[in-house]
Amino acid sequence: MSFISKNSALGALIQNNLNRLAADEQLSPDRMLNGLENGEMVLLGNPLHPNLRPVPVGQPGRVKVNANLGTSPGNNNLESELCKLKTALLSGADTVMDLSIAGNLNEIRKQIISTCPCPLGTVPIYAVAQRYIEQGEDPAGFQPEELLEEIRLQAEQGVDFMTLHCGITRANAAMAEEKNRRCMGIVSRGGSILARWMKRNNQGNPLLSHFEEILEICRAYNVTISMGDGMRPGAGADAGDAAQWDEMLVISGLISRARQAGVQCMVEGPGHVPLHLVPSQIHTAKTLTHGAPLYVLGPLTIDSSPGYDHIAGAIGAALAVQAGADFLCYLTPAEHLGLPGVEDVRQGVIASRIAAQAGETALRRPWALHREKAMNQARSALDWQGMKKAALDPAAVCERKQNLDADSPCDMCGGFCALKMTRDF
Amino acid sequence: MSFISKNSALGALIQNNLNRLAADEQLSPDRMLNGLENGEMVLLGNPLHPNLRPVPVGQPGRVKVNANLGTSPGNNNLESELCKLKTALLSGADTVMDLSIAGNLNEIRKQIISTCPCPLGTVPIYAVAQRYIEQGEDPAGFQPEELLEEIRLQAEQGVDFMTLHCGITRANAAMAEEKNRRCMGIVSRGGSILARWMKRNNQGNPLLSHFEEILEICRAYNVTISMGDGMRPGAGADAGDAAQWDEMLVISGLISRARQAGVQCMVEGPGHVPLHLVPSQIHTAKTLTHGAPLYVLGPLTIDSSPGYDHIAGAIGAALAVQAGADFLCYLTPAEHLGLPGVEDVRQGVIASRIAAQAGETALRRPWALHREKAMNQARSALDWQGMKKAALDPAAVCERKQNLDADSPCDMCGGFCALKMTRDF
Repeated sequence: MSFISKNSALGALIQNNLNRLAADEQLSPDRMLNGLENGEMVLLGNPLHPNLRPVPVGQPGRVKVNANLGTSPGNNNLESELCKLKTALLSGADTVMDLSIAGNLNEIRKQIISTCPCPLGTVPIYAVAQRYIEQGEDPAGFQPEELLEEIRLQAEQGVDFMTLHCGITRANAAMAEEKNRRCMGIVSRGGSILARWMKRNNQGNPLLSHFEEILEICRAYNVTISMGDGMRPGAGADAGDAAQWDEMLVISGLISRARQAGVQCMVEGPGHVPLHLVPSQIHTAKTLTHGAPLYVLGPLTIDSSPGYDHIAGAIGAALAVQAGADFLCYLTPAEHLGLPGVEDVRQGVIASRIAAQAGETALRRPWALHREKAMNQARSALDWQGMKKAALDPAAVCERKQNLDADSPCDMCGGFCALKMTRDF
Repeated sequence: MSFISKNSALGALIQNNLNRLAADEQLSPDRMLNGLENGEMVLLGNPLHPNLRPVPVGQPGRVKVNANLGTSPGNNNLESELCKLKTALLSGADTVMDLSIAGNLNEIRKQIISTCPCPLGTVPIYAVAQRYIEQGEDPAGFQPEELLEEIRLQAEQGVDFMTLHCGITRANAAMAEEKNRRCMGIVSRGGSILARWMKRNNQGNPLLSHFEEILEICRAYNVTISMGDGMRPGAGADAGDAAQWDEMLVISGLISRARQAGVQCMVEGPGHVPLHLVPSQIHTAKTLTHGAPLYVLGPLTIDSSPGYDHIAGAIGAALAVQAGADFLCYLTPAEHLGLPGVEDVRQGVIASRIAAQAGETALRRPWALHREKAMNQARSALDWQGMKKAALDPAAVCERKQNLDADSPCDMCGGFCALKMTRDF
């Protein structure tokens, strides 16, 4: 029995969208179908998400960019998050995640789903934990059934993909403790709640012990599981340690089980990884997870650039794309310091798109080369309108160059324009 | 006869500064002396530059960052350039270049030299060409003697390093013409003036035919020659073409001649280079130029991010540093669109420092690892003052996190702080 035939919601999505999506990706419909069948590609789309435009993620399609939104205790304002959503989409984000942890999370999520034409991801454990944290109670007090109910509720609401930290075990959580030579411990919010839960309850990860029930829910609504990287390194010095790879090994087995059950999966990657380790991290993760689409946060190549993590992250992301990463979660200039504002969202999305373009240009992907060629031709002809059109952010061209008349020199060079200097000879 | 003994200005500089500079670079004085002697390191410093703090550039020292300043026809204001100079230094630039092309260049240069405690670089041909361009005359009308006089004048004024496009020949300039399959032609301002001059005068590059006289001037004032990359690719599609490498081969021979004459040299590198070609470009340039310090502009990994070239450039620069580049010329968000403003200068310097830190962390350089470790320890302890101190831009931490009290959570996570979630257990 084929993978797709096990998941009727996915089958319907494919039937209705395959030709258009394949054309967008510059792939043949057969090639895309093959990728979806063998799990190297997923099609994000919950049939209950109204007005959704499904998005394929994986090789050899276009690299996609995700923007994180969501309220926080320090900045709890739905209007502001909806404004960020609009900005993220205008800046070129392909998907968004609602990571809200303050306010009425259910209401916020419903509003975002109804406003958002692109796939929406969530981390269901946040909603469960928030009910405890807001009461001043220990978030590790929840019952596994509450978490399953939350996953089901969000699937029914139309959430398209969910970060579920299924690969965390008591063994790898212990490996991540600082006494075991990890520098930063656990830095994943969801991961840290589960690690706390396991200690408090002296039981294994509830997402793992209830994995079959989770698969049933996800298959029914074609929710793509994004296997959370609860043990991702939070410092470059921790990259590639035992905790990280032990979790990835668990995920490796879970991907096989999910595929047997007809459930689509992506894998979340690091994290904080120095430049020289980025390619091997991507290759190893891809190999262990049977080529499942890899969804990376950063990788952040240095830890010492708070205020500019979108740049340190773009360096790692470009290299990650070149090595095979499929999906970039943006980092904004606010990372590690606070909640991003609207302009931070724009900067974060564009930095990720720059990284994707750099990586895909290195991979000689036709859409990336096409954009580069269009820019080069326009630049060579001093065709400013053409440059604006080819730019990843056309607005930035207009902001800095008021006069877009053909053949006008830039303010930097004026009469020293090198192109004109040699053109007349 | 040793290299250093041929250059008495350099010898005096070494005598007065070696121990302090070697300590700054975490090298033994002997190791640094060895680098200077074999040309893998240069010591930027003209004895006539008042109040100068000389700066060593090259392996295995710290990677340095240069900021370009200078007036342009669209923005001709000395005060504004002096403000950019101050900002560049405060942001961590190690050197600056005065690329002014508008106003009284001689006066501007004198002002900048007298204000600037770090090494200053120039491109002398700009001053020669400007005299013609301002009169509406062809800049290719200059006599070689004018160019030599300008080099001498600037050396006497205290300029520490000069971009001289000595490697341009009629042969490689012809290779760079668009009819010979180059997409962007010549994009170097100095290179384009020389290419025009050679065609108009039907003669070879005057910098090459007068190379011995140039060496004499440079030796007398310990002016370091920065071998200009007039044929650098101006589009990723042109990276590594015949014009680029032919010029580099000429430079290879000139470096040997300069070293015979006791003159310090650096080499300017690309340019626009897609990600997958960056390492081989750096390795090849380094090999051909006998390990001379490599001074790279970018490399810009994509052409389609005008408004964000500091990010596309940081991606290439990080990889270049990892591959052996020594000196990063910043790119600002204004590149390809206009003259940078003060905030652009800050962004450009910091983006280059992020790239240097990413590359040097990958190279496991002790100063880079030390900064990373300080940040990780502070972050793990929620010690915000420590994070500020370890940050490449401490101001950015204060701008985004008002409360720097120890143990205060960030606005993003609040009660969901992963570090606290696992700490109490």
